[in-house]
Amino acid sequence: MNTTNKLRTMTMLCLATIFYSTGTLASDPSACTPSKWGPDDQIGAANLVTPERTLQAMKLVKQGISHPLGIVIGPKTPAFPPRSMALQVVSPGQQNGRSLEGDFGWNITYNDDLAQLWFGIGSQIDGFGHLGEGGMYYNCNDARDFVTVSGLNKLGTHNIPPIVARGVVVNMAKHKGVDALAGGQPISSAEIRAAAAAQGVEFREGDVILIHTGWTDAKLDSAPQEWNTTQPGLTNEAAAWLGDQNPVAVGADTSGVEVVPPAEGDRIFYGHVELLAKRGIYILETMNTGRLAREGVREFLFVLGQARIQGAVQMIINPVAMW
Amino acid sequence: MNTTNKLRTMTMLCLATIFYSTGTLASDPSACTPSKWGPDDQIGAANLVTPERTLQAMKLVKQGISHPLGIVIGPKTPAFPPRSMALQVVSPGQQNGRSLEGDFGWNITYNDDLAQLWFGIGSQIDGFGHLGEGGMYYNCNDARDFVTVSGLNKLGTHNIPPIVARGVVVNMAKHKGVDALAGGQPISSAEIRAAAAAQGVEFREGDVILIHTGWTDAKLDSAPQEWNTTQPGLTNEAAAWLGDQNPVAVGADTSGVEVVPPAEGDRIFYGHVELLAKRGIYILETMNTGRLAREGVREFLFVLGQARIQGAVQMIINPVAMW
Amino acid sequence: MNTTNKLRTMTMLCLATIFYSTGTLASDPSACTPSKWGPDDQIGAANLVTPERTLQAMKLVKQGISHPLGIVIGPKTPAFPPRSMALQVVSPGQQNGRSLEGDFGWNITYNDDLAQLWFGIGSQIDGFGHLGEGGMYYNCNDARDFVTVSGLNKLGTHNIPPIVARGVVVNMAKHKGVDALAGGQPISSAEIRAAAAAQGVEFREGDVILIHTGWTDAKLDSAPQEWNTTQPGLTNEAAAWLGDQNPVAVGADTSGVEVVPPAEGDRIFYGHVELLAKRGIYILETMNTGRLAREGVREFLFVLGQARIQGAVQMIINPVAMW
Amino acid sequence: MNTTNKLRTMTMLCLATIFYSTGTLASDPSACTPSKWGPDDQIGAANLVTPERTLQAMKLVKQGISHPLGIVIGPKTPAFPPRSMALQVVSPGQQNGRSLEGDFGWNITYNDDLAQLWFGIGSQIDGFGHLGEGGMYYNCNDARDFVTVSGLNKLGTHNIPPIVARGVVVNMAKHKGVDALAGGQPISSAEIRAAAAAQGVEFREGDVILIHTGWTDAKLDSAPQEWNTTQPGLTNEAAAWLGDQNPVAVGADTSGVEVVPPAEGDRIFYGHVELLAKRGIYILETMNTGRLAREGVREFLFVLGQARIQGAVQMIINPVAMW
Repeated sequence: MNTTNKLRTMTMLCLATIFYSTGTLASDPSACTPSKWGPDDQIGAANLVTPERTLQAMKLVKQGISHPLGIVIGPKTPAFPPRSMALQVVSPGQQNGRSLEGDFGWNITYNDDLAQLWFGIGSQIDGFGHLGEGGMYYNCNDARDFVTVSGLNKLGTHNIPPIVARGVVVNMAKHKGVDALAGGQPISSAEIRAAAAAQGVEFREGDVILIHTGWTDAKLDSAPQEWNTTQPGLTNEAAAWLGDQNPVAVGADTSGVEVVPPAEGDRIFYGHVELLAKRGIYILETMNTGRLAREGVREFLFVLGQARIQGAVQMIINPVAMW
Repeated sequence: MNTTNKLRTMTMLCLATIFYSTGTLASDPSACTPSKWGPDDQIGAANLVTPERTLQAMKLVKQGISHPLGIVIGPKTPAFPPRSMALQVVSPGQQNGRSLEGDFGWNITYNDDLAQLWFGIGSQIDGFGHLGEGGMYYNCNDARDFVTVSGLNKLGTHNIPPIVARGVVVNMAKHKGVDALAGGQPISSAEIRAAAAAQGVEFREGDVILIHTGWTDAKLDSAPQEWNTTQPGLTNEAAAWLGDQNPVAVGADTSGVEVVPPAEGDRIFYGHVELLAKRGIYILETMNTGRLAREGVREFLFVLGQARIQGAVQMIINPVAMW
Repeated sequence: MNTTNKLRTMTMLCLATIFYSTGTLASDPSACTPSKWGPDDQIGAANLVTPERTLQAMKLVKQGISHPLGIVIGPKTPAFPPRSMALQVVSPGQQNGRSLEGDFGWNITYNDDLAQLWFGIGSQIDGFGHLGEGGMYYNCNDARDFVTVSGLNKLGTHNIPPIVARGVVVNMAKHKGVDALAGGQPISSAEIRAAAAAQGVEFREGDVILIHTGWTDAKLDSAPQEWNTTQPGLTNEAAAWLGDQNPVAVGADTSGVEVVPPAEGDRIFYGHVELLAKRGIYILETMNTGRLAREGVREFLFVLGQARIQGAVQMIINPVAMW
Repeated sequence: MNTTNKLRTMTMLCLATIFYSTGTLASDPSACTPSKWGPDDQIGAANLVTPERTLQAMKLVKQGISHPLGIVIGPKTPAFPPRSMALQVVSPGQQNGRSLEGDFGWNITYNDDLAQLWFGIGSQIDGFGHLGEGGMYYNCNDARDFVTVSGLNKLGTHNIPPIVARGVVVNMAKHKGVDALAGGQPISSAEIRAAAAAQGVEFREGDVILIHTGWTDAKLDSAPQEWNTTQPGLTNEAAAWLGDQNPVAVGADTSGVEVVPPAEGDRIFYGHVELLAKRGIYILETMNTGRLAREGVREFLFVLGQARIQGAVQMIINPVAMW
């Protein structure tokens, strides 16, 4: 059974076996996890970005190479529905041979661009306002309190300070001896540990941990729909284990870091709760890790400054890897 | 006469004295400047980002401090007309107490965000497709050839590699003994040289040069309309001189780096031609330099990875300064 | 106390005296009103548009005059927050003197337009998916069942058949001897009856009833913020009484038909429940009734064909009045 | 050769035989046609809507039937590139069981909708600012004078008064004995005259003339790409001839009224020039004429009130046909 069919079957089983409820959602404050950085904290593991760690991370740049971890995003880039993007370039006042010389006093010509887009498309950072459980988000923030239609009142991605960190890559594809893991192929913490050990990767507090599966390089262009509806990735347990290593962020070269469809007994996308809501750890999606994998890069300097749109839930990003 | 009135008067003089023409625009290829990086080059001074310079720049990080050079952008952030932005946060399938448990199998809750915005708002990088003269842009690219309504075919900002560079700040406000220069106050190359000399700032090829005027800290919140219609900044001559220092990018804590209204005899915004079109040097607008000025930071590591939207003219950015 | 202050005071009283609850919303199916047009009905009083009534309404056109009941809507048109609109006109492929002759074989020139807008701006029809009580909308439709982020699954305005009806105008401003009622001035059913009687207006089943207050002509341009935050209009009781006359639609030359702030003891905007949810009667907002009032038009042919965007909640409209 | 291949071949022939020029476009004022309604006229044949004609048109309503001439438009509705539409429904303040009772004082629930769309999608009216020749539009308006990126300064569709007219349908499919004409099948004025004569349709000044080809009913759902890239329709000569009958508007059940690919020797879409630019006659695209054809309706009352967005080029419409 191929992965697409597996997903369809799985989805049907879900609908058949789970009691379908539109019943009233009840947030349960007792179920949430207070942040170890205090009740007012909004930035979570970004607190781990310290001068000491920054100075250590600088030392990882030995060759002077820099690399964009963001992919190029266009109108056909697949995304979780109904996310999409459209761009328009305009040349104000320059239609049909009209010159701006009369307006500006010299023969200026210029273009501007506007877009209609969802920020959760392509390479992106998930802020803590993106996903929670039972209405409760990071640090016991209740969706009823901080969400407004015009932006988040708390947990907006504009709050995230620059993430400057030691980056590490675990190459799961290489560990399995393939170019790319398969859609639906789960990655357990035991496998991550084994791959890391084999590849000489050590996890430290404050790291940015990236998992290379080969999925995006293999599928994004050639099979975009498959890329978008299934993927290899973390089991719930692996997400929790990675979170327990106290990184600043966990990412992968897939659109959601977790395996889809979920592993047997797992909750779909529940790794988001383990990382974002319970531990205040950022998620980095669709990271462009191919070159790092090919060149055997295991450690690097990671620098991310995301566009600071007030109250945004997520943000399209292009972190820079340097080694 | 205050600056707003001055601008109005100036604008009227412009309209009165300049022969208003809607005459046909004629691109003059002979007037354009071929790139020193060859006829196919699209990235200009980003070619100056080299392993050697990157390794040198790393050494500037001595304290381990990182700082966002991007400001927070919201729906009220002023911008060159008709640029604007709007954001919406949605909670799909979670209206009126509807639970997603039936759809996902557990009590997931999530928010997504969409936006309608122009990329030339707030802190931004101007790509080479933004501004030219007589229809000719960087490296003799003719607007008629590379502009489409759905994106640029060449010179898109998604092409720009990570800009990792030595950053320097020239504090013009301190040099003049003020918190902020005045709207319409021109900055000449002689003044930049004098300030740099007094502050111990040396310019090197491949730098990112930032000019601190104090303008954004002084006016953006308190007088947004004034902030947006006038500003201190570079004369045409100063822009050319800065370009001749061969930086990767020139930026300022103003929305357009040049003085507005322009200095006597100058062309408004012509510094964009000197930098973008003639020399292939990027422009960084509305840089958040206040902290650097206050703390006397003169040199720093500059890292920019802009979101890679295909064919975009400009991009909202948040470069990271580290020292 | 002027109306703005009154509104502010009223709002504060509300917040002070009402138990503020973010408690779980519980839809109460027993509280909803089944439609008299059957459990599957989605169009409510549009069922009253019949061949007989249409033929009768045609007879109201005696002079051959036609008039747009929609106002002109632009980017500065005030609206219930955060509703807004923006328009861009583009001239694809025609920048900087580029000719389309090579693409099309002749010297074609053209413009297109795109917009980012909320459909609840300016002259608009409220569909039955716009407003309900306790999560229940028209015909006992539960918001949890028919709302999706990409459109309504039921009750979308694209379903509304052409509304061809007898239109009547009650001129409340004339009845009170003023050009325009004041913001916050309530209109009771007794006053409507008295005005109608004095003006010779009779209500019949299947009518479109418009209330002229003079508010939009008086305030939209001169005091847009006041226009948008207060208005004269129906009391809860008047809305219910009008609904009991069995019209197809009730409208006014105000943005929400009800008085804002609400009358003593009333619920703000509760007329929407009386009309939309309980009775399946459409609401027409910001109707351009000034000319009808000035010319003493009391009866007219009303024809509305709204743009049919699938799953829309509301729609910008421009019904045609003919007499 | 099927129509899609024919179109591709035709396009290649075009590109091969036409001298490709990006040369400077020169507007030639001498080539434009002044309006017979005077140099200041902006509404063209809408001047033909008179009380007399309106009263005559009312008499066409004999059965009391009304019918929407607009189709339902959704995110998958094909359109001339890059036109598109997207809709979002939001439930402000009602996420995750949040109640608005604290904000409004009662258990109000509501939805709003926003959209990002091009107005030239689905059933639409082309305003006179949509298409011209050599930069000149209706009534010798030069694109350089009336087009701005934020809207048209003249010829905006918000200016169009209600179009109340006698409507006539010519059923070309029936005349050819088919359900639908083929893509690329041209319709000449001789064929229109023959069909009209056979069907007892007479053209009068001030009419709205609709051509039924069967194309949209046959192809829109079943073959959307074919629907959008080829179509039966008017030859250049037929468009001119129809224009010479002095209608208010000419429409069809296709996306552009003209045949695509164009007839031998014709200019593609040049019927737009004949109607809009030379004669001030509106074009109505993708009219929902199927029911009229099936029921043999030849004459009807046509009423159009388009949403009045300031400075728009086109507008999505839903005219009402009554008979």
